[in-house]
Amino acid sequence: MSDQDPLVIFTPSGKRARVPAGTTVLSAARRMGVDLDSVCGGRGICSKCQVSPQFGQHSKHGVTVATDALSDWNAVEARYDEKRGLKPGRRLGCQAEICGDVVLDVPPDSQVHRQVVRKRAEARDIVLDPATRLYFVDVDQPDMHEPTGDLERLNRALQTQWKIGPVAAPLTVLSRLQTTLRKGNFQVTIAVHHDHAGSPRLIDIWPGLYEGGLYGLAIDLGSTTVAAHLCDLSSGEVRASSGVMNPQIRFGEDLMSRVSYVMMNPGGDAEMTAAVRAAMSDLFAEIAAEAGVDARAIVETVIVCNPVMHHLLLGIDPVELGQAPFALATSDAVHCWASELDLTGLNPAARTYLLPCIAGHVGADAAAVALSEAPGQQDDLTLIIDVGTNAEILLGDRNGVLACSSPTGPAFEGAQISSGQRAAPGAIEAIRIDPITKEPRFRVIGDERWSDEPGFDADVTGICGSGIIEAVAEMRMAGLVDAKGLIGSAEQTGSERLVAEGRTHAYVIFESLERRITVTQGDIRAIQLAKSALYAGARLLMDERGAETVDRVVLAGAFGAHISPLHAMVLGMIPDVLLEKVTSAGNAAGTGARIALLNRAARAEIETTVRRIHKVETAIEPRFQEHFVAANALPHATDPFPELRKIAQLPDVSFNQGDGGRPRRRGRR
Amino acid sequence: MSDQDPLVIFTPSGKRARVPAGTTVLSAARRMGVDLDSVCGGRGICSKCQVSPQFGQHSKHGVTVATDALSDWNAVEARYDEKRGLKPGRRLGCQAEICGDVVLDVPPDSQVHRQVVRKRAEARDIVLDPATRLYFVDVDQPDMHEPTGDLERLNRALQTQWKIGPVAAPLTVLSRLQTTLRKGNFQVTIAVHHDHAGSPRLIDIWPGLYEGGLYGLAIDLGSTTVAAHLCDLSSGEVRASSGVMNPQIRFGEDLMSRVSYVMMNPGGDAEMTAAVRAAMSDLFAEIAAEAGVDARAIVETVIVCNPVMHHLLLGIDPVELGQAPFALATSDAVHCWASELDLTGLNPAARTYLLPCIAGHVGADAAAVALSEAPGQQDDLTLIIDVGTNAEILLGDRNGVLACSSPTGPAFEGAQISSGQRAAPGAIEAIRIDPITKEPRFRVIGDERWSDEPGFDADVTGICGSGIIEAVAEMRMAGLVDAKGLIGSAEQTGSERLVAEGRTHAYVIFESLERRITVTQGDIRAIQLAKSALYAGARLLMDERGAETVDRVVLAGAFGAHISPLHAMVLGMIPDVLLEKVTSAGNAAGTGARIALLNRAARAEIETTVRRIHKVETAIEPRFQEHFVAANALPHATDPFPELRKIAQLPDVSFNQGDGGRPRRRGRR
Repeated sequence: MSDQDPLVIFTPSGKRARVPAGTTVLSAARRMGVDLDSVCGGRGICSKCQVSPQFGQHSKHGVTVATDALSDWNAVEARYDEKRGLKPGRRLGCQAEICGDVVLDVPPDSQVHRQVVRKRAEARDIVLDPATRLYFVDVDQPDMHEPTGDLERLNRALQTQWKIGPVAAPLTVLSRLQTTLRKGNFQVTIAVHHDHAGSPRLIDIWPGLYEGGLYGLAIDLGSTTVAAHLCDLSSGEVRASSGVMNPQIRFGEDLMSRVSYVMMNPGGDAEMTAAVRAAMSDLFAEIAAEAGVDARAIVETVIVCNPVMHHLLLGIDPVELGQAPFALATSDAVHCWASELDLTGLNPAARTYLLPCIAGHVGADAAAVALSEAPGQQDDLTLIIDVGTNAEILLGDRNGVLACSSPTGPAFEGAQISSGQRAAPGAIEAIRIDPITKEPRFRVIGDERWSDEPGFDADVTGICGSGIIEAVAEMRMAGLVDAKGLIGSAEQTGSERLVAEGRTHAYVIFESLERRITVTQGDIRAIQLAKSALYAGARLLMDERGAETVDRVVLAGAFGAHISPLHAMVLGMIPDVLLEKVTSAGNAAGTGARIALLNRAARAEIETTVRRIHKVETAIEPRFQEHFVAANALPHATDPFPELRKIAQLPDVSFNQGDGGRPRRRGRR
Repeated sequence: MSDQDPLVIFTPSGKRARVPAGTTVLSAARRMGVDLDSVCGGRGICSKCQVSPQFGQHSKHGVTVATDALSDWNAVEARYDEKRGLKPGRRLGCQAEICGDVVLDVPPDSQVHRQVVRKRAEARDIVLDPATRLYFVDVDQPDMHEPTGDLERLNRALQTQWKIGPVAAPLTVLSRLQTTLRKGNFQVTIAVHHDHAGSPRLIDIWPGLYEGGLYGLAIDLGSTTVAAHLCDLSSGEVRASSGVMNPQIRFGEDLMSRVSYVMMNPGGDAEMTAAVRAAMSDLFAEIAAEAGVDARAIVETVIVCNPVMHHLLLGIDPVELGQAPFALATSDAVHCWASELDLTGLNPAARTYLLPCIAGHVGADAAAVALSEAPGQQDDLTLIIDVGTNAEILLGDRNGVLACSSPTGPAFEGAQISSGQRAAPGAIEAIRIDPITKEPRFRVIGDERWSDEPGFDADVTGICGSGIIEAVAEMRMAGLVDAKGLIGSAEQTGSERLVAEGRTHAYVIFESLERRITVTQGDIRAIQLAKSALYAGARLLMDERGAETVDRVVLAGAFGAHISPLHAMVLGMIPDVLLEKVTSAGNAAGTGARIALLNRAARAEIETTVRRIHKVETAIEPRFQEHFVAANALPHATDPFPELRKIAQLPDVSFNQGDGGRPRRRGRR
């Protein structure tokens, strides 16, 4: 390249080089390593390589681009524009030739490895690089003098035209190869799967240029619900999301009851395996229909789940996971055909990837959280808690990551709570108790008003997990409960809302003709057990790390998104930390699945990460019991962060505290 | 190793080295690269590492072996001997320690890579090295502090104890891993498949030491019959063989009629695919039962077949093979799970290997012949002919191999012959005609006597392929047929056995009350067409090679084994060559399948060989037509090799020949 050659500058990459005049924009981009898409390989038929030339003066780049810096609009572009329409100012990169200095913008839809932006500020963007991609290939016709098979000629074309392959073809695809090649006059589009493990595989084949797009499913297979997101593999966009109940619930509400079911009913695992696979297949079909996407275009699935779900999905008896030493059949990532799992509603040759499990109690879902939140890439020592029947806990920063699971039980899901219910319309999800009057006001799911606001007339049916956490914390701050968790009497606390219940007391939140919603002593005990387990797990990891405090707390999971950080801290569920340092990551496991679906390097990354995570088994760690017992108390009788109370838009509270944590008896008002 | 260390000499390898005193025989063998088997890895439980120490003076090796050259018989050996019995003079290599100079013989049953001797003198022996082998492994128990999966610990053990792996486990095996490991107290025997393509795979797992052996099936899938041989993978021995009719016959007798069936009945290929897979599965079950071998112990299958069978087995529509340019869907070898072909009657995780196809008309069966006969490794220019409805023809030596197929039609199988029948009891398979009296004598299948021997009373039902070849050649040599293939009249030839048949004549071989068996003019025309095609194919390859003659002719296939080389040469079926240079290779395709089954390197070898074979397509080669027309005559009116006639134990013949090849009329005797 001489100084006489035109200077080409691509934005947004900023890559610049001189190329001989007459070079097409696409080949300049390829030589310069610029991310410019092309499915047809420069034949002017796929239109994926569109660029926007930036004419005029560019002081930033130090060039002035003349209007004749590119060759004239040619017949191929004219035909494409006529048939499909080219956006104003766009050129086809494979047709436009460089004639003079030029600045060329590559719009996001022309980038292969575009960035998929995540909403949360602290989250890393996803670089789009899915394992399955489309390639348009021009295959040599068969020649009797060189009698090679069609597959071998396809592979030769793929090698010559795309520098990839050879691909192995499953028999289901091989059986369609000959007719498709001939239908497309030996021009075909193929979908090739190539992740970090294994060699490239032919997933599907279409005659001519296939323009239907490829899709993948990111699946969060939970004990209670199965949620799936249908993602466009060329944009990263979520096209549809849906969920179904996990039908295994009829074999047992929680994981351990399902394991028990297998122990009591040999072969019961096969029933549960069949049930969940069928439910997933139905879900896939439903999502595809909702998004108007052909099932055949769904070529990949990524699944995250806990270890028991993992085994039951794979058809492995989970009994070993129900007893020490909680041995997994396999802990590494699983790569297989979706058909091996009897999954339907997608391409018959779709691939399935299950993230690795961290330990017998810390599954692929926790690995997905680690992928999404990347604690190992943080400067801050970050505590990540995914709250569920089991809480998965991760603690780490650049110096390393630790993980454990803690048996919190179902209290946080509203189970084992006297007025508890699932998070559904009518459930109390937030509550405030006036520390002076001891009167509650609350909000129920399905109504944005507080109960003391005019027009509030919701049907109050119970209290859900986030509601009970707030209720107990508020009772503590209002002096209705002491540090040991004992509910005072009306005499002790001066509140008529405290009523006798057996030999203890209960706090009445709501009363109507149909029902009375209370927080009983038993409810508080259940919450104490659950929060102690959670805290003890976190504390155990902090001990292992030698840390007295953490810098950040991330609450993951659907439930975590609804927990009030302030109330969690009042209860002592999570270690004390600045309130603004407590964030919710939403369904981080699902996000991790989506990352692994959209970026194949993320799969290699999480497999390496998981191998490096230091696992701590709470079940056999004596200090876990110590921390568990020590964490039973409700530590904060006052708002621990009064200055942050404003930020949380909560009323200031102040009240007295008696000896031994029991509130001083106050006279009635 | 110092000169003071004991000298160890292993026979039959002759390998010698000094090893420190106290080294076990097994570890000495491993260090020295001596082929000494061991499944249990030296734990004294599998007894595969037996050796026979050779005490006394060995002038050949220059050592004298003292009786105390090995450590004393130990408790492990005593226990083994008591329980299972150790042959006299044998020691367990993993127990016996080397104390002084010693000569140790490794008996064949202790060798991993023992030689499997083939019967034919010119055939290469097979070195036993199957793709699937057994390994005994001692797996670490799960540890809560290091929570790895059972599969990952199995792989670690395999790496440490056997230096192989990691193995990938199909879900069907993974689902049994945990229970098997625990049943075997974490000692298990695994079957690992590892051929030249792809990474090692876990095929099966048994608790403790599995002693049941592993088996494989070598399958010759023909258009008419399916034959399978069950081979012991640890000895190479054929344990049982059986065959069934190919049920696709009901869709069409020959290949092209099956292709036509698909053309006329879209979807008809699926019926044929299902039919042949079911027949194969039944055959496997029958063979396993006959040999008393558990289906689960059958872990591999190797299949050879022609291209149409290949496609129909794989579930690929064969129509492209029925029309130029005869494109195969895939020509490379196929590696898959037997379950992908719905094959049952063997281990659910058994692997299947299909040899590569050479061209659209020259299939994996021809590749198997090339593997068995190895023309590319011969000094002699060798012509190999596998006669069937299509003849596959190979020609080559160290300088290269050529291949073609020639459409001989079904005449050689007794079809299109007036008195023709399949080779079955009652069929005339050999015939001699006295050149003076013109009287025939013959032999039928099922009776060893000639028809003129006392006591011959067989029920003569027809004439099979080898019989018709001999009949036409004998008629030619007896002056009953001229060079153009015309049958003379009784007046011309002086034989009353010639009768009028329409406007031509026929020769009566046999006549009874029930039937008359004749050779008609039409029969001779059919044989002329078939033999011309065969000869033209061979000639075409010779042209390509620039050869006027060949050094050797090998007749392959079941039919080839029954052809009289002399008569084939009289007919001009095969080029003239010294009679002793014409040999039969028997079922060379089946042998090739067995070689690929028993030696994994042979698979890589044949894949390379096939890529190098120069393919010639007879259908589009004008010279094929020229050769075909030119080959129509019956070239030899006299025995071409009278001096070899004695070797063939045939009577001398001498007779006159008239002008134009027509025999001179002779008076009746």
